Amino acid sequence: MNVLKGACIIGQSGGPTSVINASAYGVIRTALDSEAITKVYGAEHGIKGVLNDRLFDMSAEDAGELENLLYTPSSALGSCRYKIADPDVDDTDFKRILEIFKKYDVRYFFYNGGNDSMDTCNKISKYMQRVGYECRVMGVPKTIDNDLFGTDHCPGYASAAKYIATSCMEVYQDAWVYDTGMICVVEIMGRHAGWLTAAASLATAMGAGPDLIYLPETDFDMDKFISEVRKVYTETGGCMVAVSEGIHYADGSFVSEAQASATDGFGHAQLGGLAGMLAEIIKKEIGAKVRGIELSLLQRCGAHLASQTDIDESFMAGKAAVENAVAGLTDKMVGFERSYEGGAYVCRTKLFDLVDVANTEKKVPIEWINAQHNGVERAFIDYALPLIQGETRMRKENGLPRFAKLKKVLAK
Amino acid sequence: MNVLKGACIIGQSGGPTSVINASAYGVIRTALDSEAITKVYGAEHGIKGVLNDRLFDMSAEDAGELENLLYTPSSALGSCRYKIADPDVDDTDFKRILEIFKKYDVRYFFYNGGNDSMDTCNKISKYMQRVGYECRVMGVPKTIDNDLFGTDHCPGYASAAKYIATSCMEVYQDAWVYDTGMICVVEIMGRHAGWLTAAASLATAMGAGPDLIYLPETDFDMDKFISEVRKVYTETGGCMVAVSEGIHYADGSFVSEAQASATDGFGHAQLGGLAGMLAEIIKKEIGAKVRGIELSLLQRCGAHLASQTDIDESFMAGKAAVENAVAGLTDKMVGFERSYEGGAYVCRTKLFDLVDVANTEKKVPIEWINAQHNGVERAFIDYALPLIQGETRMRKENGLPRFAKLKKVLAK
Repeated sequence: MNVLKGACIIGQSGGPTSVINASAYGVIRTALDSEAITKVYGAEHGIKGVLNDRLFDMSAEDAGELENLLYTPSSALGSCRYKIADPDVDDTDFKRILEIFKKYDVRYFFYNGGNDSMDTCNKISKYMQRVGYECRVMGVPKTIDNDLFGTDHCPGYASAAKYIATSCMEVYQDAWVYDTGMICVVEIMGRHAGWLTAAASLATAMGAGPDLIYLPETDFDMDKFISEVRKVYTETGGCMVAVSEGIHYADGSFVSEAQASATDGFGHAQLGGLAGMLAEIIKKEIGAKVRGIELSLLQRCGAHLASQTDIDESFMAGKAAVENAVAGLTDKMVGFERSYEGGAYVCRTKLFDLVDVANTEKKVPIEWINAQHNGVERAFIDYALPLIQGETRMRKENGLPRFAKLKKVLAK
Repeated sequence: MNVLKGACIIGQSGGPTSVINASAYGVIRTALDSEAITKVYGAEHGIKGVLNDRLFDMSAEDAGELENLLYTPSSALGSCRYKIADPDVDDTDFKRILEIFKKYDVRYFFYNGGNDSMDTCNKISKYMQRVGYECRVMGVPKTIDNDLFGTDHCPGYASAAKYIATSCMEVYQDAWVYDTGMICVVEIMGRHAGWLTAAASLATAMGAGPDLIYLPETDFDMDKFISEVRKVYTETGGCMVAVSEGIHYADGSFVSEAQASATDGFGHAQLGGLAGMLAEIIKKEIGAKVRGIELSLLQRCGAHLASQTDIDESFMAGKAAVENAVAGLTDKMVGFERSYEGGAYVCRTKLFDLVDVANTEKKVPIEWINAQHNGVERAFIDYALPLIQGETRMRKENGLPRFAKLKKVLAK
């Protein structure tokens, strides 16, 4: 075997999840224990930490604190939303990255993020190949959106799904408590893919969830929506609705568009305020008592409700990235493949080409959405249910989470 | 001892909490096991269930399902916001209640609610005394607001506090993840008392919580607020703020007033949209990236984060109500008294006169609020910390909560 000796960098990018640090820990722990890897650096704020020469020496951290990363939400090393240039147009960043890689003898680069991050990863890998600098590059996926190509599911999705389903079940108990009816609209993240919003159906499957679910995979029609809510409300005296932040009309414009006021670093519209807006429309049209609830950041950082299955798999993805890179592989993203053995769900890692993953979005299959486009089919439940099993083993102190406290010692 | 034989009614009223059903279960279980109490009825939607002759036979329920009430949020029997008349002005409701009490031979009435509900309880008790119908009346408190007079704290508060502190800690991790600064405003319930918002300081005490906390106990000043946020943001590159929904200007008007659009049954203004409004103001004034988060219903129904201490104490309150009533007491609310034994927190029940409790609000002591009126003192942390200890023993099924499923068999 061609053993490539050298240092590694792990960086995190994009929106946080409850378990992205579990993947980072999978990389860090495995790299620290690897004989091929001479030094383990954590990049501050993803690729920006490389560009700015801000690398943390992970060997300086306490082993127990590193292990707490399994249960610490958000990106412990810091994240970024930095759109790297096309090297054919502007290779300034790439030259700088090469300079830093040479300075620290970096031969392994692990990037922990969503599809934009896999694009960054892919460009760096191709650039290093082109200039003949040997460096193995592996993408370690994370996204609550579950929209990465190829993989059965993405680390981070299941914990957000568990948070969403649990919260919907609890809100459902609350929303039906008075004898005066109430219509409750819950707004869930997911710009283009409805995986997260679909997770609200797990609550419904447990007998306490939304009556109507609207995903961004189909076009939204306000009149149809009002008439469907009215029907449920008239028949049952209440109605709970889950909507994706990304629902849009047939012309592609976001329903929340009026609220959009800013864009993030990638030019995505920042969405929000949709639940309140829909609740107001329903109040005017139907005259019911309404409540709009936005799950907001909580759904992506609610680590106290993380799925232990998700934590274990996220760690496994990070570990597999290092093991495969050390074994000689490069230019891949670690994904998951599902099987059932004796009826039991089994998840194994599988490698995908970065070039295939970068910037491709995987949506909820249309056959998993019901004919009325206001709910999901059993196939989705069967898909999602195994992923949310198991309760987090998060450490608590004073009845509250005890998150990892890193020293973040800058590399010399 | 004067053993009063007869049936009992338990009703629930006001906004739900994560543990109001634990108190109801304390009443129901103890009453079912009591020799004095011949029949246990649950009133559908509180006092309205009495007025409408909608009583459930609690002996028809499965014992295991009843026990699940310990971990089921919201009011399982249904709640109401029904303002009962002054019997001197209009005794229609009271005559009807007496009629139902006689019909079912009700000699014990337990009412599970907040201060409005203690007022209802008090009026019923006084009316029954006046007309010479022997019936022992006990209030079993619940309120996330923690604003009931006399008692050290209220069942339901600690679980909401634990939810708020945990969520703030998680959002804090998320809010600081990018190198571009962010100002995050978290809106927390509590119209007139700041107990819930103050609970955000528990997150700060753990090293990951709001920099600034604004309670309704002091007057809010928008210019002071903006300048305080600006100072923290300039010095640290970020800022997390917790505000009570009930913050108000010196003239008493709610800051959120522009958003108020409806009133509930008691004439309270329905508040909401404050976080978004303040975030917009900050964005305009400071130019930072902002995020407004409303914890909304989740903070009062997030039973998966209930404090086991709160669950145990809530059950104890319900149990004590029955035991004291059977022992001959009436016209009381069960409250709590705190002591420390060998340094360890100990909570015991204590009875308070209903007439003292009804409609009196207990606020956060001004000496527990810092001099700048933008945070709390250590005394609050010492007060709140023992209450949030212990993790719920909620049953899970398919990785999701398994709430109580009651048959709700109507009494003949």
